[in-house]
Amino acid sequence: MSRESVTVLGLGQMGSALAGTLLTAGHPTTVWNRTAAKADAMAARGAHRAATVAEAVAASELLLVCVLDHAAVRELLDPVAGELAGRTLVNVTSGSPEQAREMARWAAGHGAAYLDGGIMTTPPGVGDPAHMFLYSGSPEAFAAHRETLAVLGDPVDLGPDAGLASLYDAGLLGLMWSVFGGWLHATALVGADGVAAGAFTPVAVRWLRTVAGFMETYAGQIDAGHYPGDDATIDVQLAAIDHLLHAGRERGVDGRLPELHRELMAKAVADGNGSDSYARIIEAFRPAR
Amino acid sequence: MSRESVTVLGLGQMGSALAGTLLTAGHPTTVWNRTAAKADAMAARGAHRAATVAEAVAASELLLVCVLDHAAVRELLDPVAGELAGRTLVNVTSGSPEQAREMARWAAGHGAAYLDGGIMTTPPGVGDPAHMFLYSGSPEAFAAHRETLAVLGDPVDLGPDAGLASLYDAGLLGLMWSVFGGWLHATALVGADGVAAGAFTPVAVRWLRTVAGFMETYAGQIDAGHYPGDDATIDVQLAAIDHLLHAGRERGVDGRLPELHRELMAKAVADGNGSDSYARIIEAFRPAR
Ligand SMILES: NC(=O)c1ccc[n+]([C@@H]2O[C@H](COP(=O)([O-])OP(=O)(O)OC[C@H]3O[C@@H](n4cnc5c(N)ncnc54)[C@H](OP(=O)(O)O)[C@@H]3O)[C@@H](O)[C@H]2O)c1
Ligand SMILES: NC(=O)c1ccc[n+]([C@@H]2O[C@H](COP(=O)([O-])OP(=O)(O)OC[C@H]3O[C@@H](n4cnc5c(N)ncnc54)[C@H](OP(=O)(O)O)[C@@H]3O)[C@@H](O)[C@H]2O)c1
Repeated sequence: MSRESVTVLGLGQMGSALAGTLLTAGHPTTVWNRTAAKADAMAARGAHRAATVAEAVAASELLLVCVLDHAAVRELLDPVAGELAGRTLVNVTSGSPEQAREMARWAAGHGAAYLDGGIMTTPPGVGDPAHMFLYSGSPEAFAAHRETLAVLGDPVDLGPDAGLASLYDAGLLGLMWSVFGGWLHATALVGADGVAAGAFTPVAVRWLRTVAGFMETYAGQIDAGHYPGDDATIDVQLAAIDHLLHAGRERGVDGRLPELHRELMAKAVADGNGSDSYARIIEAFRPAR
Repeated sequence: MSRESVTVLGLGQMGSALAGTLLTAGHPTTVWNRTAAKADAMAARGAHRAATVAEAVAASELLLVCVLDHAAVRELLDPVAGELAGRTLVNVTSGSPEQAREMARWAAGHGAAYLDGGIMTTPPGVGDPAHMFLYSGSPEAFAAHRETLAVLGDPVDLGPDAGLASLYDAGLLGLMWSVFGGWLHATALVGADGVAAGAFTPVAVRWLRTVAGFMETYAGQIDAGHYPGDDATIDVQLAAIDHLLHAGRERGVDGRLPELHRELMAKAVADGNGSDSYARIIEAFRPAR
């Protein structure tokens, strides 16, 4: 089975995981890193080590860029812009949606197809199809390289707006910090009564599946702009959160996070929306019109 | 197959779901509700309608209580305390851990076995083994009635401290509100660029599975009191959350929730823990020693 050649620019923690996974899958892989010594490990595993960015770009039609930030991407690619025509640039460096859209325009201006990517795992998770790699940008590039990209993780196509992978990435990281916050708060709460994190967490993980079901129901309500509180109303949840705040105070657990949720619920109730579902609280986050 | 008799006291939304599910599963079911008319539907489905609490208690060894709150439980049961000896009281009314522990002592004083329960779903989810019913209290009662309780949802045994079902319940609801908050914030963020909640949410739900994997790793770190930042450090996440705050500000999305997370991270970094994993942030929630 012949696998396409790939060039990986940037061999930090993440770039090394990408290149290593491609090598394991049998892709002829060319690597380059600013600090050349970091390419040693990949070269030892059979990667072709390019001496210059230009040589790395010339080696493959598919170019994966994974460096620190947007400025590093531009610093790296500007000098070789003239070599990009006909190639596909897949930029998995984290950045803003605006930077991704700018890169897409820049690449188009140099005749290259562009995909922006968001890697939804840490380096040890690379290569596991359970994890998502989000892509947005050229649909043709996605279709042409889908199989290769699938080696890294499950490729999720977010469509032609190059900014969306970054925007989803930011939103999903925000969701992660919220999950971490709620879970750490709860772990501190049960921990005060002697429950180990290792005992509580499997229950919390199972509970996330139930909560995910609520989210799926509420997503439909948000798109319909109609929030029937037939399973559980904000009124009822405002009463219930007082139990949590009380249990936390009794135990000396920091209450800033549940207090913020209480504030959001109280505002919805004050606005006359207490009999709606929790999904109505999206209005607290949305831009004022 | 002969199934044990059950009495359900309280036929609000949740009590009716419990009684209805027991009836469907073929359990001889006796019901009582303060407002008698609410028992009509269950009687029509074959439930035995008790005229008084005493009659309802006399009908079954296994008593399920699901009323508004702790005060209602006491008001209901105090007059029949003398009839409880040898029976099992399963109280799935929401309340505090302290109230549950008090009920356990009260029941023991009257010769009844006691289980406190936390129902981790809404009434339409009752009967689905995907959802958890948390129980704490008498291990013998749990073992003896496990099969009947399994009709309602997956019974999870939290051990002999009767307060734990309520404490877990409070913590898990807190986790739910945090998940909702993070997801609604993210949905507002991507929504500002035209992405529907129905498009974003399946990606968010998949992401929760990846995040759950991080939680499992971090739970071990918390119990060990050692937080190696080898996958992702707080330093790196403090840098990343600025992208989220920036993207939110650009779009006029409310930033209170990510700002709180930023504050927690910044404190950990200021305390010299920036190279640790996010799990270290549990210290922000834990009671001061
Ligand atoms: N690690 C993760 O869990 C993870 C997850 C998702 C996304 N990401 C994203 O992946 C990207 C790389 O992260 P990482 O974890 O690999 O970081 P890292 O280990 O710190 O590596 C940074 C890489 O960027 C290179 N670099 C920095 N400035 C450069 C410049 N001006 N020109 C050329 N190369 C430059 C570095 O080269 P030198 O070796 O010469 O310094 C190094 O290869 C980041 O955008 C990160 O947000 C990481
Ligand atoms: N609904 C849910 O999604 C859900 C989920 C988990 C846990 N729970 C918990 O389940 C319990 C019941 O909730 P629900 O949704 O069924 O509430 P509900 O529909 O409001 O029903 C309340 C029930 O409590 C009874 N009651 C109130 N005060 C009473 C008193 N002094 N003496 C006797 N009975 C009294 C009511 O009787 P009348 O009909 O006479 O008013 C009614 O049967 C609550 O503790 C709730 O937190 C509910």
